[in-house]
Amino acid sequence: MAYTLQQLSDFEDIRTLKHRYFRGIDTADTALLAGLFTDDIYVDYRGGNYRVNLTGKDNMLEFLANSFHANAAAMHHGHMPEIALTGLDTATGIWYLEDIFINLEHKTHTVGSAIYKDEYRRVGGVWKIARTEYDRVFEVIRPLPGNAQLTAHHLGKAGRQPGELTDISAFISWTEAA
Amino acid sequence: MAYTLQQLSDFEDIRTLKHRYFRGIDTADTALLAGLFTDDIYVDYRGGNYRVNLTGKDNMLEFLANSFHANAAAMHHGHMPEIALTGLDTATGIWYLEDIFINLEHKTHTVGSAIYKDEYRRVGGVWKIARTEYDRVFEVIRPLPGNAQLTAHHLGKAGRQPGELTDISAFISWTEAA
Amino acid sequence: MAYTLQQLSDFEDIRTLKHRYFRGIDTADTALLAGLFTDDIYVDYRGGNYRVNLTGKDNMLEFLANSFHANAAAMHHGHMPEIALTGLDTATGIWYLEDIFINLEHKTHTVGSAIYKDEYRRVGGVWKIARTEYDRVFEVIRPLPGNAQLTAHHLGKAGRQPGELTDISAFISWTEAA
Repeated sequence: MAYTLQQLSDFEDIRTLKHRYFRGIDTADTALLAGLFTDDIYVDYRGGNYRVNLTGKDNMLEFLANSFHANAAAMHHGHMPEIALTGLDTATGIWYLEDIFINLEHKTHTVGSAIYKDEYRRVGGVWKIARTEYDRVFEVIRPLPGNAQLTAHHLGKAGRQPGELTDISAFISWTEAA
Repeated sequence: MAYTLQQLSDFEDIRTLKHRYFRGIDTADTALLAGLFTDDIYVDYRGGNYRVNLTGKDNMLEFLANSFHANAAAMHHGHMPEIALTGLDTATGIWYLEDIFINLEHKTHTVGSAIYKDEYRRVGGVWKIARTEYDRVFEVIRPLPGNAQLTAHHLGKAGRQPGELTDISAFISWTEAA
Repeated sequence: MAYTLQQLSDFEDIRTLKHRYFRGIDTADTALLAGLFTDDIYVDYRGGNYRVNLTGKDNMLEFLANSFHANAAAMHHGHMPEIALTGLDTATGIWYLEDIFINLEHKTHTVGSAIYKDEYRRVGGVWKIARTEYDRVFEVIRPLPGNAQLTAHHLGKAGRQPGELTDISAFISWTEAA
């Protein structure tokens, strides 16, 4: 059995959608991010010491702008997609995340991985992320080593500065270590 | 020259096959793994301080269940596939691995990379891994830092507990550092 | 809208081209690398504490052979491509890099990420890299921990030995930390 041209094209476009998401968050590219979500996006990220839970594109954009701020250096790489088309304009995707998150204020260095389960919807001809969840596979948090030199830091310029942050406590809760 | 729909579809399905393999091992998803190998799979992983060598699906599943156990946290990400179709139902693939392996018993933290050379075979209409080898590009082993907090650990629940481990010494040998 | 067979095939081949590039540099596979660039390739890599700037395939090959030498262990993984076809034989690509670079002489360990913006051109029926630039997202440099054991090191054999290195100071400049 072979896929159709349309199905193969959908695989390509859905992958590119998610690729843009990861590039957008780590570089605080709000213009890019604004086009990637359905208005009713549902998010549930179950991290090791946090949980993100929110609904709606505006909330998502505000959450992201506050999380990838000028005191953070972040790398979120989504790998090894398993995309399935579930209708003409709907699809699911599994992705395997590797992330590094350096918090310069708290001086912590987190490395982790997670499995995403996503749903995508085509809206006005364009694939969007409609639902996204993940569960951690592993997460290790360490103090940022004192002898580490941060020699490049794009978010330092592109991310929100401390005075620009807003309250996102409605979207994220912090839990004890597992 | 363009590929045919069937060839493009095969590229998609072979990639997804290998993506499932990596997700399966790190999450100890034995049901998922059971569908991914030919009965006569041949494995030769030439690591820095180990070598895995075995034949047969049952041996592979037993090796994996013992390697990704409750005292391990693992991340195996296969990247940048170079797939070539060598027949109607046969293909080869090159992949570039990044892996993190934390052994909580030995308190070691390994980071490495490797190049896979695989062979795939379509059996009953479904692509399977028929042969898989790798050679390390680099491998660094360190003591797990005492100040590292493991805040998520999926294998701790999903992996085999110490009392459930079996003898896989026939499949893996430990060598001195290169 | 669906892509054509030719377009989908071009996506596949352009991805494979770049995959070979990353495999080639980390394993010092000069024969592989020699087929990947246009004669007039333009390179501008804006790292945290370095900048690479050069033109021409011969210069690129010489730069790479000197950078991935026997005293280095390197992992360069290009992820999450966003490929766009801009003509029958031209295309652009965005990639998101993760790299690890261990310098055994200076005893440093660099981890970083970067966004590539590439241009590709089909020459004699084969896609080649015609232009490649990147900007760092983050870069952290640390002393290589004294308790780290390098248990596999392919470049140690495959890379140029100290006496074989040539002068590439025309192509790379070292800057102060950002």
